[in-house]
Amino acid sequence: MKPCEKEGLGAAAGGDPWKECMEVAVQLALRAGQIIRKALTEEKRVSTKTSAADLVTETDNFVENEIISALKEKFPSHRFIAEESTAAGTKCVLTDNPTWIIDPIDGTCNFVHRFPTVAVSIGFAVNQELEFGVIYHCTEERLYTGRRGQGAFCNEKRLQVSKQTDKSKALILTEIGPKRDPETLKLFLSNMESLLKAQVHGIRVIGSATLALCHLASGAADAYYQFGLHCWDLAAATVIIREAGGIVIDTSGGPLDLMSCRVIAAGTKELAMFLAQEIQTIHYRRDDEN
Amino acid sequence: MKPCEKEGLGAAAGGDPWKECMEVAVQLALRAGQIIRKALTEEKRVSTKTSAADLVTETDNFVENEIISALKEKFPSHRFIAEESTAAGTKCVLTDNPTWIIDPIDGTCNFVHRFPTVAVSIGFAVNQELEFGVIYHCTEERLYTGRRGQGAFCNEKRLQVSKQTDKSKALILTEIGPKRDPETLKLFLSNMESLLKAQVHGIRVIGSATLALCHLASGAADAYYQFGLHCWDLAAATVIIREAGGIVIDTSGGPLDLMSCRVIAAGTKELAMFLAQEIQTIHYRRDDEN
Repeated sequence: MKPCEKEGLGAAAGGDPWKECMEVAVQLALRAGQIIRKALTEEKRVSTKTSAADLVTETDNFVENEIISALKEKFPSHRFIAEESTAAGTKCVLTDNPTWIIDPIDGTCNFVHRFPTVAVSIGFAVNQELEFGVIYHCTEERLYTGRRGQGAFCNEKRLQVSKQTDKSKALILTEIGPKRDPETLKLFLSNMESLLKAQVHGIRVIGSATLALCHLASGAADAYYQFGLHCWDLAAATVIIREAGGIVIDTSGGPLDLMSCRVIAAGTKELAMFLAQEIQTIHYRRDDEN
Repeated sequence: MKPCEKEGLGAAAGGDPWKECMEVAVQLALRAGQIIRKALTEEKRVSTKTSAADLVTETDNFVENEIISALKEKFPSHRFIAEESTAAGTKCVLTDNPTWIIDPIDGTCNFVHRFPTVAVSIGFAVNQELEFGVIYHCTEERLYTGRRGQGAFCNEKRLQVSKQTDKSKALILTEIGPKRDPETLKLFLSNMESLLKAQVHGIRVIGSATLALCHLASGAADAYYQFGLHCWDLAAATVIIREAGGIVIDTSGGPLDLMSCRVIAAGTKELAMFLAQEIQTIHYRRDDEN
């Protein structure tokens, strides 16, 4: 484990060894947001990855390269896990080394359609523990940040999850996920049916796991679940939710496994356990299974 | 039919007889937006109407009263159809008289949860024809306007629907609707399943019919359908979509019936007809059936 190169003194003096890393992440997220906002208005060449619903554009690749090359220059010993590099064949392994976990555009399908729910997500882990998360909702210019032990913020306003424990007053968020085979769809819809029959207040599907998790962190929703999301959708948001007082766990009800491609997040333990009991598992391959 | 009281001269001189009405609508929507933004941060007392998912707060009633009393003072001969007045027993009848069709808070469930997808919607019809629509997305400060024959705008930027005709590249929006009985849920989920099996790009559920329709008008989504929405969710958005070049029809594929509580909207005829063929009807009572 190495602190950020230029932060040795701060760390030695009892400062935050990852302060500079987080500041750099904020600057890179804001810069990426500018690129994405500009690209939103332009024509896009769209390719598919694992399914017809799993999209990538030149902007995803461009933004990811911009972020990673800037970080590599500044922090040459650090490791990287990022959406498009993984799609291109780079192994997705979380070691004890300082590791950046990056989604250059979360909500690529929204981005392709100019649907304004699009974010940059930059998480950072050391010794396999998430240290900070930076998420930038490009179109609405909302910057979400969370630093382990130091709270979570949106545009400098402190975030606090909802304290709702009653499922009948809960607003639930989920995402469809990339797989669209009949068996997956059946399970996805059956989970939605179970929750609606259990009389939850409502269910929303906004097309960005990262931003759905930010809504949860801000208390605008009470619980979230998904199968088929990736570690780069989750890493930054997990720190932010936990620092806002929320819970991020596995869909089984056990501890979160960042590589398992499934998650429950909630403001309260009661709602997290309600979801864990109610929803059926949809199988996705692990991120580290390649 | 009477033009806005103070606009007689403009009308006689070939001007827009409803120009002042529309300007007043814009001012009232902005003022309502301020009230709603403030109320978003405060504790709310929530009541239910037709179902546990059909909510109302003091702010819905307050904002509706503010809008209607201001309009009554300015345009004493005009008629009103509005969400909370109708819930309180006022008949919902569209005559040939100039009629304001108002939803003080579209997305009340979102509003209750502070989920930032909340709008004020003010439509205006004369001789049963929709003349203009004003929608204010309070939290994002986006003002959507459409005047029959004069185009549609968001914060003064001209709106244009998507030209997508290919269902496999279409982003579809829908809403769950207020009824949550098993039969309704089965049909709602079956419709979603049909579309996902038909390999549409994605489906989003954002909790505000009015704002979903604004996304359609802006080209950020390609098609929309819903059962169980009301004339006050639809009136303003219909003008805006049509003026942005889009189609608003009945779910059968026939002409829109504003009181029928069902709608298909799309950027192109192809996608509108695709939805009309694909989705099954969910029965809701008409708005004018009371």
